[in-house]
Amino acid sequence: MIGTRLTDMFGLSAPVVLAPMGAVSGGLLAAAVSNAGGLGMVGGGYGDAPWLERELALVRNSTRKCWGVGLITWAADDAIVEQVLAARPDAVMLSFGDPRRFGRLVNAAGCRLICQVQDREGAQLALEAGADLIVAQGTEAGGHGGERATLPLVPAIVDLVAPIPVIAAGGIVDGRGLAAALMLGAHGALMGTRFYATPQALAPAAAKRRLMVAQAEATVRTRVFDQVRGYSWPTRHTGRALRNDFVARWHGRERELQQALEPQRSAYQAAAANGDCDKTVVWAGEGVDLITDVEDAGALVARIAREAEQFLMFGSHLVRRDRAG
Amino acid sequence: MIGTRLTDMFGLSAPVVLAPMGAVSGGLLAAAVSNAGGLGMVGGGYGDAPWLERELALVRNSTRKCWGVGLITWAADDAIVEQVLAARPDAVMLSFGDPRRFGRLVNAAGCRLICQVQDREGAQLALEAGADLIVAQGTEAGGHGGERATLPLVPAIVDLVAPIPVIAAGGIVDGRGLAAALMLGAHGALMGTRFYATPQALAPAAAKRRLMVAQAEATVRTRVFDQVRGYSWPTRHTGRALRNDFVARWHGRERELQQALEPQRSAYQAAAANGDCDKTVVWAGEGVDLITDVEDAGALVARIAREAEQFLMFGSHLVRRDRAG
Repeated sequence: MIGTRLTDMFGLSAPVVLAPMGAVSGGLLAAAVSNAGGLGMVGGGYGDAPWLERELALVRNSTRKCWGVGLITWAADDAIVEQVLAARPDAVMLSFGDPRRFGRLVNAAGCRLICQVQDREGAQLALEAGADLIVAQGTEAGGHGGERATLPLVPAIVDLVAPIPVIAAGGIVDGRGLAAALMLGAHGALMGTRFYATPQALAPAAAKRRLMVAQAEATVRTRVFDQVRGYSWPTRHTGRALRNDFVARWHGRERELQQALEPQRSAYQAAAANGDCDKTVVWAGEGVDLITDVEDAGALVARIAREAEQFLMFGSHLVRRDRAG
Repeated sequence: MIGTRLTDMFGLSAPVVLAPMGAVSGGLLAAAVSNAGGLGMVGGGYGDAPWLERELALVRNSTRKCWGVGLITWAADDAIVEQVLAARPDAVMLSFGDPRRFGRLVNAAGCRLICQVQDREGAQLALEAGADLIVAQGTEAGGHGGERATLPLVPAIVDLVAPIPVIAAGGIVDGRGLAAALMLGAHGALMGTRFYATPQALAPAAAKRRLMVAQAEATVRTRVFDQVRGYSWPTRHTGRALRNDFVARWHGRERELQQALEPQRSAYQAAAANGDCDKTVVWAGEGVDLITDVEDAGALVARIAREAEQFLMFGSHLVRRDRAG
């Protein structure tokens, strides 16, 4: 097994964290990841209390390993944080917004605080919030994120927040990506898109099939899905999604979408109810062209960890004892 | 030393390639990298024949190790490729455009062909051109490039072009980045911005100082510098540069710049003659916040290789024999 400060902190056998994808990372997916030796995270998203109640009960009943919950910071309030903490997770992850206020609540509950950041400014706020772990998320990531890319972002954040351990996120879908993250100084990798394409993810089968065939050139960072759904995201955060009919029609024409918002929102909701992947969002990161199947989440954790071990051992064999140069 | 198919191909002691930065990677910088065990590349850029004549003579007189030359494919013609080949480089690198026509000339001269690509479509053309090595360049890179990020791009290209070896580029400035590139399946790393901040780089001291203090959040992909200088770059390629007064004034206002092009071009040329970094381009990649000094190019190659060796050995120690999980 690969041992890092992340695995030590939660007793993991693989330095793999499930991204708490809102409404997609449910209790059974989180439990599957935790039971396989990773850290499963329930995706609390915008803070839907009944959804959280159900999924938190599921994860509690489905694993005895460590697990956590993620929330969108700017959309959260004290009540939802308290609801989450009442379920006694081992970690709470705060993403997108100032984590300092809720960080205190998490720390006071004796729960580990994970903060996800996209730049150095965010990392500074995470330090002030008392983060136990900091996720450095690159722009390659599916769903909401920032502008900087994973490979140069991770070591910059590692240097900035040392000795707080860092987890890499964005574009990581296999053992090569995990091994690369460890070389950059991270203590593990957080993966979303890869776990979206598992049977346990709470997502339409049609959307999972799209991920299997999509190429990374087909993803784009956009605001149009937040706009039509009526979410007031901070302007620094866009969402990376597969290009589809809706993107082709509205991306770059946000002003026109605003003018047609009411009928477009009704049409969007109807399309969402039908699971129409041409007209509604399928979040996806740039690692998508390395995803060619829907794979059991537990098997995935084991495979990625095993591949990363092999790459790490291979890497040491690249170092030749004789200095022939 | 770290041994890969790249080091075997050119007899290197470090899997480090100097990016052929146009007009910046001169003969002395290329020779310094080659003499330190990497692969030095002269930056032929748009194909300035007198500049190339001078710099090719310099590199030939300054090293007995392997070295190469890079050209911007869409700006090249047969005459400039033949001028380059007449200097008998060990490698010619073609970037940005269809490499197939010149690839034949390079192959026929018995010279190694390196093609730099930004996506899968470019990799396909590189294969058809007969590339001996393919550089997968992420959007993090300074100067011209594409949209996809290094970490997920490299393994996708590795899988696509196997068994042709791949070199990673974009956001790599230290041993951590090189070690990560090797984990992704690359056989080495190509670095530009890091070598810009060396005494040997043909760039104004003021620009090098800017790199030392700049943060990666301060870089942006833009077309305005190509526009004002009058270069007709293919629309798929933008250039990553430091944000400065010129970017603040014109980025996003390309139409207005087009209308004011003549006076703005004169002003730009005057500013360039004065080495004014507020009003002219300083290309820089996202690795820039890991660059805090101007360092000798040869010492840099040795340090990065040594750091990467240490990280690769450290990585293998993360693999614990006892499966405690």
